[in-house]
Amino acid sequence: MLATERLEITLPEYQARVRALQTRLENAGLDGMVVFGPTRVAYLSGFFFAATERPIALVVPTAGDVAMLIPRLETEHLALQAPQVGRAVVYPEYPGGGSGRHPMRFLLELLTDLKLANSRLACDVDGYEHRWGYRGPRLSTLLEHPVSERLELIDDARMVKSPAEIALITEACRWGDHAHRLMQDMIHEGASELEVSQAASLHATKDMLAALGARYAPKSREGKPANAMFIRGANTANPHGLHEPGGVRVGDVLVTGAYGVVGGYESELERTMVVGEPSPEFQRYFAAMMQARQCAFDALRPGRRCCDMEREVSAFIHDELGMGALMRHHTGHAFGLEGHEHPFLDLDDETVIEANMIFSIEPGVYVPGFAGFRHSDTALVTQDGCRNLCTYPSSLELLTLY
Amino acid sequence: MLATERLEITLPEYQARVRALQTRLENAGLDGMVVFGPTRVAYLSGFFFAATERPIALVVPTAGDVAMLIPRLETEHLALQAPQVGRAVVYPEYPGGGSGRHPMRFLLELLTDLKLANSRLACDVDGYEHRWGYRGPRLSTLLEHPVSERLELIDDARMVKSPAEIALITEACRWGDHAHRLMQDMIHEGASELEVSQAASLHATKDMLAALGARYAPKSREGKPANAMFIRGANTANPHGLHEPGGVRVGDVLVTGAYGVVGGYESELERTMVVGEPSPEFQRYFAAMMQARQCAFDALRPGRRCCDMEREVSAFIHDELGMGALMRHHTGHAFGLEGHEHPFLDLDDETVIEANMIFSIEPGVYVPGFAGFRHSDTALVTQDGCRNLCTYPSSLELLTLY
Repeated sequence: MLATERLEITLPEYQARVRALQTRLENAGLDGMVVFGPTRVAYLSGFFFAATERPIALVVPTAGDVAMLIPRLETEHLALQAPQVGRAVVYPEYPGGGSGRHPMRFLLELLTDLKLANSRLACDVDGYEHRWGYRGPRLSTLLEHPVSERLELIDDARMVKSPAEIALITEACRWGDHAHRLMQDMIHEGASELEVSQAASLHATKDMLAALGARYAPKSREGKPANAMFIRGANTANPHGLHEPGGVRVGDVLVTGAYGVVGGYESELERTMVVGEPSPEFQRYFAAMMQARQCAFDALRPGRRCCDMEREVSAFIHDELGMGALMRHHTGHAFGLEGHEHPFLDLDDETVIEANMIFSIEPGVYVPGFAGFRHSDTALVTQDGCRNLCTYPSSLELLTLY
Repeated sequence: MLATERLEITLPEYQARVRALQTRLENAGLDGMVVFGPTRVAYLSGFFFAATERPIALVVPTAGDVAMLIPRLETEHLALQAPQVGRAVVYPEYPGGGSGRHPMRFLLELLTDLKLANSRLACDVDGYEHRWGYRGPRLSTLLEHPVSERLELIDDARMVKSPAEIALITEACRWGDHAHRLMQDMIHEGASELEVSQAASLHATKDMLAALGARYAPKSREGKPANAMFIRGANTANPHGLHEPGGVRVGDVLVTGAYGVVGGYESELERTMVVGEPSPEFQRYFAAMMQARQCAFDALRPGRRCCDMEREVSAFIHDELGMGALMRHHTGHAFGLEGHEHPFLDLDDETVIEANMIFSIEPGVYVPGFAGFRHSDTALVTQDGCRNLCTYPSSLELLTLY
């Protein structure tokens, strides 16, 4: 990616994604696909939007140009973000805006027009997701015949990242790391989790926008592209703990989370830290987590299945560390446009690991009533192993706050 | 709500919600319901969680106690947030964590155990939403018989707010208003949208946490409960515009959005502002928007349908203002636990308006290439009209920045 280019996927790459999907549709003997998932629509078109009760759908005919169903509200936005979508069927408003017709009726018309209404049609999910007060019929109900749900036709292609996607995620790592650094430097006795987390995120975002300038292409409405947060104390024993009031105290264990978002792509970085001299108990668990982490990095390589890799890590935690009872989750997950994506580094996921997949590496041990111990990093699978795209320190020495 | 109580829905109210649902299930001749929607699970149980690829489901038998399907990861969290859920079926991990079974197989076992697997069962949606890499069978596929999707059995009850819900939303308004005030005071020539928005949100959140202390009950992981943002210039002509780089300039039109979150309930506040002396063109559109807004407040009252109300507002904008072509959306929407909820103030929504419903009132006019004009407020339907729970100024005089 050139230093002057906007940090986003280019139009030719979006178009190539559609063509690749069309090939898969053809091979599957399908005439087209209706895509409702907002992330999948963005993946195929570059149209990132705030998903609300107003349904949006991308129609991909196996032969022919894509078309889209959008609310009136999004017309200018679509023209700006995805000018290659030549045909947009626009409904006035949800649930009808005076048209007397549900938005899905407009979709039916479009499909009829494209001669897809009675053909071999797939969808990612059968109808628009019931979010934010949306109510509506399933696509199969509308068409009065079954439609096969084949989200893997899109999502399997999202597993292996392109050079451009890897470049965006690498850049995202840079800003997630930066937000984390600012946060670490701001934590002091008495500090509030929420205040420090938000202030660090804001400062990191400022720095990021200043550094990237016009190269930064915002993809979401909230738009805070560099983020860091932490929770502390016994609350860290809950892998998804919520912020708690009160201030940081000496002796607190902290578990953090940080990420950047660049061109719609996220990074992942998490660290376990401690305030003041770590206790022997803390040191023991921290060292165990670090060993599990190394085991996971060593086990991640192309050509083997996710479950094979996870079996190694899990056996290590159970047998070598004797901490099987303290596990709460598997080693990691793919990600990119979403915070978690298929596949998963899990004993029951048989997906074969390939070069250029991106995974979080985050084996954790959780001691109820005491603390959780988990680092997480953004690992890129290479030809013969993996490479950590996060450059943040991981050692106890550099994660102890005095 | 007492000044010392935690700002959240009480356990007896959650239990009453379940009992009311059980009565509706009984009246509908159903034996139980499986609830997958994260907001609906929280509405019925008080269990707020980060929705990921790990499915969570609440099972509500028509006669008997509720039960829940959760991942191992959430066990401590559930015990803390919803201790009344006596029975939790715990699966190790998604997609299987070594169990060799998809989480939905655990749900099937639970339903079999409860003697619901072959009974007249409803669900809100047929299976867990395909988010964050989740892949799994529909509930009907699992049960090998159709399951009726009846989300309205829950969501219709969410339309009319309880006194406790209204108290939480009123408190949320207070903090959305406060965040907006801080943001307005911070906007100056050259300021970045993102920086000012985030800084104001952080300061407002600090103030909120300091004022509420232990009464504040966090319900989400991100946890920034007082928020304000704005976009500016011609970008405001896009009702869902994204943040843009660059600084505020004299002459800019600003469209804002602010909200608080208290006990999981949101408020809504939006204002159209201008930097420097407003042009005659700006004044004309602003005045028109204010008239449409007043028309909408006057039209919102119990006993009539949403479409009747909207017909009045829409006719006013078309016929009195002559600005029908500048409309991009209907007048408003219900909200509470989600930013938009059913029903909608729309020409095609025949829901009858009742006292204690909460709606946004936000008729807007959008002039492509120039600006958007929209205020939004949190309106509580009263016995004979409505009351604005937002106390923020609305006049041009008080929204002009010098």
